[in-house]
Amino acid sequence: MLERLKEETLEANLEVVKRGLVLYTFGNASGIDRDAGLVVIKPSGVDYDELKPSHMVVTDMEGNIVEGDLRPSSDLKTHLALYKAFTEIGGVVHTHSEHATAWAQAGRDIPAFGTTHADYFHGPVPCTRPLTDDEVNGEYVLNTGLAIIERFKGIDPLAIPGVLVGGHAPFAWGRTPHDAAHNAVVLEAVAKMAFMTVLLNSECGVTSALLDRHYFRKHGAKATYGQN
Amino acid sequence: MLERLKEETLEANLEVVKRGLVLYTFGNASGIDRDAGLVVIKPSGVDYDELKPSHMVVTDMEGNIVEGDLRPSSDLKTHLALYKAFTEIGGVVHTHSEHATAWAQAGRDIPAFGTTHADYFHGPVPCTRPLTDDEVNGEYVLNTGLAIIERFKGIDPLAIPGVLVGGHAPFAWGRTPHDAAHNAVVLEAVAKMAFMTVLLNSECGVTSALLDRHYFRKHGAKATYGQN
Amino acid sequence: MLERLKEETLEANLEVVKRGLVLYTFGNASGIDRDAGLVVIKPSGVDYDELKPSHMVVTDMEGNIVEGDLRPSSDLKTHLALYKAFTEIGGVVHTHSEHATAWAQAGRDIPAFGTTHADYFHGPVPCTRPLTDDEVNGEYVLNTGLAIIERFKGIDPLAIPGVLVGGHAPFAWGRTPHDAAHNAVVLEAVAKMAFMTVLLNSECGVTSALLDRHYFRKHGAKATYGQN
Amino acid sequence: MLERLKEETLEANLEVVKRGLVLYTFGNASGIDRDAGLVVIKPSGVDYDELKPSHMVVTDMEGNIVEGDLRPSSDLKTHLALYKAFTEIGGVVHTHSEHATAWAQAGRDIPAFGTTHADYFHGPVPCTRPLTDDEVNGEYVLNTGLAIIERFKGIDPLAIPGVLVGGHAPFAWGRTPHDAAHNAVVLEAVAKMAFMTVLLNSECGVTSALLDRHYFRKHGAKATYGQN
Repeated sequence: MLERLKEETLEANLEVVKRGLVLYTFGNASGIDRDAGLVVIKPSGVDYDELKPSHMVVTDMEGNIVEGDLRPSSDLKTHLALYKAFTEIGGVVHTHSEHATAWAQAGRDIPAFGTTHADYFHGPVPCTRPLTDDEVNGEYVLNTGLAIIERFKGIDPLAIPGVLVGGHAPFAWGRTPHDAAHNAVVLEAVAKMAFMTVLLNSECGVTSALLDRHYFRKHGAKATYGQN
Repeated sequence: MLERLKEETLEANLEVVKRGLVLYTFGNASGIDRDAGLVVIKPSGVDYDELKPSHMVVTDMEGNIVEGDLRPSSDLKTHLALYKAFTEIGGVVHTHSEHATAWAQAGRDIPAFGTTHADYFHGPVPCTRPLTDDEVNGEYVLNTGLAIIERFKGIDPLAIPGVLVGGHAPFAWGRTPHDAAHNAVVLEAVAKMAFMTVLLNSECGVTSALLDRHYFRKHGAKATYGQN
Repeated sequence: MLERLKEETLEANLEVVKRGLVLYTFGNASGIDRDAGLVVIKPSGVDYDELKPSHMVVTDMEGNIVEGDLRPSSDLKTHLALYKAFTEIGGVVHTHSEHATAWAQAGRDIPAFGTTHADYFHGPVPCTRPLTDDEVNGEYVLNTGLAIIERFKGIDPLAIPGVLVGGHAPFAWGRTPHDAAHNAVVLEAVAKMAFMTVLLNSECGVTSALLDRHYFRKHGAKATYGQN
Repeated sequence: MLERLKEETLEANLEVVKRGLVLYTFGNASGIDRDAGLVVIKPSGVDYDELKPSHMVVTDMEGNIVEGDLRPSSDLKTHLALYKAFTEIGGVVHTHSEHATAWAQAGRDIPAFGTTHADYFHGPVPCTRPLTDDEVNGEYVLNTGLAIIERFKGIDPLAIPGVLVGGHAPFAWGRTPHDAAHNAVVLEAVAKMAFMTVLLNSECGVTSALLDRHYFRKHGAKATYGQN
């Protein structure tokens, strides 16, 4: 069942490994079939070398396992919350990639310092507030998702396809698992360059005009980048 | 047509990939045949793994496609502006290499901190001013080229074969596409070392005498480096 | 004798090499057979490429060689001190991994800045005090172990499975040589992210609630991570 | 002629490439046969991929070519000056390795921050003063060597087997070309860790006792490290 989505989800998991964003098993990617109301996600704590499409776990929107012998990623409920709130996204990727995690640990939004950023993120990559003790001690993984959603009030999740969870690490998403993984990789590169940028000049950033120009060069009806 | 130049241009594109300057498709190299008045450039958004000489796009100096089925790099008009203004250059390379981009995002020239720099750049690598909103909203890609040219008033482009576009990323050039790629790679290395240097000592730099000595060791009639 | 432990110890030595924590021969891993009262450790100064299980040196708890033609790692007595004091650990790994060593050289504990840290270390990774001249001039390697043990007064070594030796480098440990190597690798990643975090925000850190939540997600009777 | 020394010198050149210290042709290694009064050195500007022992250039102590069709490294006269002044060394390596070069560009000695440093360098790695304009405009390459020698007044070059040339890059040496390359690699690692250390704590460093302990653990009559 959902064979194509399992393959796409596996490929998204492997892409972030290939690009150096993942140490050991610190990451997970999922995809959603909106028509079926089912999510496909990486199993928890399995070595990437051994992962096959058949290892992917299928759950419903409440996290009940519909197919699969393995336990799903421990971050499943964050993914589900994002799918419910961001109705246009088709894939979610979570990593502890080094530079994006450093920003998340520092509790700082990543400012839009240049066109690499603007090509993918139409504004700063926001960082969530710290969770309260009650949120941590309660439905922690779900509450992580809710804190992301709270932070995105007034922000189009497809225009800013990623977030830093304060004290934790990044999540990225997109229309497909492939796009989510791609955005996670770019987020890490943007985070690395922004880290160096603030050390060189603590007060800089692109103009709104340049932000718009680059973002809409790659997105929307008037996009001119690539062959499509 | 222009088979040799297509191969050289492809090689220049692949060189910056091989040296780790390019993530996904974030970069492009071109070459010019001055006699024919034609430019060869990478197509936009095509995976490097698949690139062949025959994919290269041939345009005239106004950007009209003379040969090729693919859309040219979205930065074509910057390349063309540079070829028109810098009449001795034969190749142009654009990347978003991490350290050079950090300096560009910080809006800072890279000072001549040492002989690695001086071997290739006879003075600081300049950073352009930010584009005005009108420039961004108008012929943006062309205006990027014009801002570079404005910044090089009084500077010999072959003596400083690279630039940082403020809020964007570096361009490098040279007498051939090969030289342009080589200079882009060295620019990234110089930018990385300069980043660490300013964190260790915010006030340093080579003397003019040392700058001259190293630059002219590798360039000009009295060059002594290498086997030629 | 102790063939399985020799293999596990070799694997732990190779794991830290594979993960980029070791330059030349700067590191060593050991394992203990508590029933036999014997320790298996890497020989001193032998290239990793050539290491075989049969090269591993077997010693008693006082460091007397019981089996093996090669001289044991020069850090043997630190390992032995840790095995005696931390009675639940089964493996010890020492490296000069770059980022953890930078923190050790700076003489600073690594604060718990995020969940990557909390997943493995239930609090800051402590740094020992500098050794006195008498300690350095006396039984230096043993005294290094004693300084670690002194620093862990009141700390459960399995809850904080690693330490920074001030002015020197990290040690990590675990229930097995495999776990010790795994913890050494994570410690380096945590040290790298923490380095960047303090440059971005000198005042941050996770709440106790989040520290507990993540630590106990992976450890103890209520662990939920992975497939076990 | 000098076949064994040519092979050793080639291996030293390749070792620093393999360890990531060299971009393009930015580096060179040499060896000396003290009995014959001859030096073997890499040719200038030749790709490392193509280098064979027969490409090595043999010169006398004044730099006259005794054997070889290629031009010797442009840094030859610095090597010769070091061989004349430091009579116990048998190999010299010059690189522009990134972190050591950053310290050289910053004009700062690398302090002895830890035992990795102390295992190889019995005190800070010194940085030379800037050359005067006259020195740069005169016998520049020779004067670089003389500035190193001046800086080593009162320092045993085998106890501190490396230097930073201010505004330029490091040189390292040793009893053999192999040792010189090994020391160049360790110098780069030490420079990287020291860079991070000063950002974490601008006031730190090992005690003299620890410096002695580690240095003499690997060097001199009482060395205990390794299998010899």
